[in-house]
Amino acid sequence: MGKKTMNDDNRYCWQHRHLLDVTQLSGQDVLRLIDLASSFQEINRRPVKKVPTLKGKTVVLFFAEDSTRTKTSFEVAGKRLGADTHTLGKSGSSLNKGESLKDTGLTLQAMGPDVVVLRHTSSGAARYLAARLSCAIVNGGDGWHAHPTQALLDCFSLHEAWGGEFAGRTLLILGDIAHSRVARSNVHLLSLLGVNIRLCAPRTLLPAGVHTWPVEVYAHLEQAVRGVDAVMCLRLQLERQQAGLLPNLDEYSKRFCLDSRRLALAAPKARVLHPGPINRGIEIANDVADAPESLILDQVAAGVATRMAVLYLLVMGSDGGSA
Amino acid sequence: MGKKTMNDDNRYCWQHRHLLDVTQLSGQDVLRLIDLASSFQEINRRPVKKVPTLKGKTVVLFFAEDSTRTKTSFEVAGKRLGADTHTLGKSGSSLNKGESLKDTGLTLQAMGPDVVVLRHTSSGAARYLAARLSCAIVNGGDGWHAHPTQALLDCFSLHEAWGGEFAGRTLLILGDIAHSRVARSNVHLLSLLGVNIRLCAPRTLLPAGVHTWPVEVYAHLEQAVRGVDAVMCLRLQLERQQAGLLPNLDEYSKRFCLDSRRLALAAPKARVLHPGPINRGIEIANDVADAPESLILDQVAAGVATRMAVLYLLVMGSDGGSA
Amino acid sequence: MGKKTMNDDNRYCWQHRHLLDVTQLSGQDVLRLIDLASSFQEINRRPVKKVPTLKGKTVVLFFAEDSTRTKTSFEVAGKRLGADTHTLGKSGSSLNKGESLKDTGLTLQAMGPDVVVLRHTSSGAARYLAARLSCAIVNGGDGWHAHPTQALLDCFSLHEAWGGEFAGRTLLILGDIAHSRVARSNVHLLSLLGVNIRLCAPRTLLPAGVHTWPVEVYAHLEQAVRGVDAVMCLRLQLERQQAGLLPNLDEYSKRFCLDSRRLALAAPKARVLHPGPINRGIEIANDVADAPESLILDQVAAGVATRMAVLYLLVMGSDGGSA
Repeated sequence: MGKKTMNDDNRYCWQHRHLLDVTQLSGQDVLRLIDLASSFQEINRRPVKKVPTLKGKTVVLFFAEDSTRTKTSFEVAGKRLGADTHTLGKSGSSLNKGESLKDTGLTLQAMGPDVVVLRHTSSGAARYLAARLSCAIVNGGDGWHAHPTQALLDCFSLHEAWGGEFAGRTLLILGDIAHSRVARSNVHLLSLLGVNIRLCAPRTLLPAGVHTWPVEVYAHLEQAVRGVDAVMCLRLQLERQQAGLLPNLDEYSKRFCLDSRRLALAAPKARVLHPGPINRGIEIANDVADAPESLILDQVAAGVATRMAVLYLLVMGSDGGSA
Repeated sequence: MGKKTMNDDNRYCWQHRHLLDVTQLSGQDVLRLIDLASSFQEINRRPVKKVPTLKGKTVVLFFAEDSTRTKTSFEVAGKRLGADTHTLGKSGSSLNKGESLKDTGLTLQAMGPDVVVLRHTSSGAARYLAARLSCAIVNGGDGWHAHPTQALLDCFSLHEAWGGEFAGRTLLILGDIAHSRVARSNVHLLSLLGVNIRLCAPRTLLPAGVHTWPVEVYAHLEQAVRGVDAVMCLRLQLERQQAGLLPNLDEYSKRFCLDSRRLALAAPKARVLHPGPINRGIEIANDVADAPESLILDQVAAGVATRMAVLYLLVMGSDGGSA
Repeated sequence: MGKKTMNDDNRYCWQHRHLLDVTQLSGQDVLRLIDLASSFQEINRRPVKKVPTLKGKTVVLFFAEDSTRTKTSFEVAGKRLGADTHTLGKSGSSLNKGESLKDTGLTLQAMGPDVVVLRHTSSGAARYLAARLSCAIVNGGDGWHAHPTQALLDCFSLHEAWGGEFAGRTLLILGDIAHSRVARSNVHLLSLLGVNIRLCAPRTLLPAGVHTWPVEVYAHLEQAVRGVDAVMCLRLQLERQQAGLLPNLDEYSKRFCLDSRRLALAAPKARVLHPGPINRGIEIANDVADAPESLILDQVAAGVATRMAVLYLLVMGSDGGSA
């Protein structure tokens, strides 16, 4: 599964009106996105980081849940493609005046955006809107459900780090999997690309029904990390402790913090990912976060390139094949 | 009063430095604005929704009162014309440090904007600033006083719906007229264009001095709506009930909610307007809000086109005649 | 020290990667900045206020401390040069999730900005970031420490007002010098340019160690102002009174408010500066703030031009010599 596959298949064409969840994507879709993201990554490294591809297009970033990191990433992506971007938060929006999400969405749509990126606390919010609006919707994160551009940027980061070879690789996802939309999306996407997935977490932070996932579950980090090609640490929301899901943070980090001693059990040059922001000393040790193997900042750069690819394909649609 | 009038009169020329209130506009001004808004509406429907007309111009949106809807509409309008836009809210502005509106305005002006759009809780704030600043001021809503771009977009929506014929039409404005800057501006503007206006509201929500307005006042919706060509519902601010102006919401909606049964008493194909956000089931029923006769979302689209026309005329001034 | 100096010296070349404090600047640097700011000031007065110099460049404005005035000034500056600007506040940023300033900075950097402007409550924050990031950092104000673009715009304003002659002029800085980053930066920069500096303040608002500064200190405004070519009033933070540093505001303004009677003791046509926002009647009287001698609004315009010059030099670096 590599670039060749896509070039061989001249009939390939991006078919999606929206990006709601990675489950809608085929392996070819993902490779097309990665291919485009590579081109945009190259543009992002030029002195003049801008192309006029989406000039005259309008991208609305509707962040009903705060996330400066994701919002800024989409904003940079949109502007680098020449689009006009408009950011709306929950505060000040008519949601606060009791307007329904549907009515807010229809109002935004009437202003003629080409894409609406929605971040929302409720699982399914993006899909709900996509069923009611005619413009393209990107799910910028909905509750615990999905965060497809995060999973795609993780794939793109691993694609770059692994020289494009996914099949037969092993990834460990470590930490609060139960509450992570990142984990769900990544398990699906990386499985699709042929990556073996392991999970490691305290039992209270494993999702119900995890035995139906295409993964191996480990209780002990030392066993889980053995021989893996990459570890994806998840952020531990500190409020989990108050909810009684953790004994205490010290205990947690003693057992589940990725430090260099544990990382040494992985395959040589194993990579480390984290969606950020990181809790240093809790789920990831300083020496690992700042090591050359860490892809954490590469992921941020990959995020801009990946979101450029997503905006491009959704706006330019099937014509995107010639880009 | 139609397109012909304007074309016939070669001497017509936009004369206004500011847009503070619709009372400053002549019928010719309004028709010129509608004409321009039609051109911009057409641009807004193109794949590339952008013209370089205001490139190198600076538009400041100073929203001392929150209104994401109006702010985003102006922002989209400015960017589609190629202008740079800058948004300031009250929070964080120097108004919070005790600076006077005049000093804040002079400071903004010194940064060289071509237009300042001001939204403010105090009636007369835009006029106050216009008397002290040399750049163009647009009143984006001031207290209960005026909201000229809303009234202009309503005119533009009705112009499109009615095929450009205003004279002899009848419009009913329904709801909280006392506290509505939208109602005041619309009564003036649509009267000027030859529309007959009816008002219907509980006595406590009629403005003092309404008997001097060029309108017919009705106490009963069933009588008011009979034979009208359009109904404009106003948003009921739910805090009016706490202020003792309403018995209760159920009672209010029983008497004043526009539902399909009542709308059936109007002229065939009568249109429905609402400035948004709507309170479904209070001032407007679901079946009316979502009916094909509803212009509510057309109004939002008209808002962008109308604001483009306003920004264009204020910046390009009398040269606008050749646009 | 004038334009000639710079033209004579063909070897002059801007050498700074960051702008952290005015203490890093040579006299030649300051004159180069003033020269460039003059060019941009001229562009800002054109009908089309935009050049494509920084097209494809990304400027991030990270304002961990609120300041709409400075933020908008940088934003206008960036956009007029054709750059894309992105604004982040503290609220919603990952600093609120416990992320360190370094990690937030590295994350921003990974998105590929050419310049990050940092406003922060902690002295030294910009220098801290500059030591850890590879992109250019501009100190947009850090605690009581420094605010270099404010001092540079003050220099530029005085340069325009004084026809380019600094040497032998006398400036009085009046008010809360102890808590003013503006005062510190200005004392350094204007001394460098050959201006004699006087300070006047209640003893409680003079900084510790002021006797080591290259200034004359006065206790009485009537003596301090005698014969000066300009007075720079500082904003009195009203919370100083609660901190017990002032007897009361009436008493303060009786002794230290610059009014026209006191200004009459200065040299003919002495100029008045204030970084804003002004407290009318406390540190500056209405008749002085609004007099023709007041440069207060000129300073705001100078701020945009000066920040354009700073962004230009940091992004275009030593190639800037040919601009």
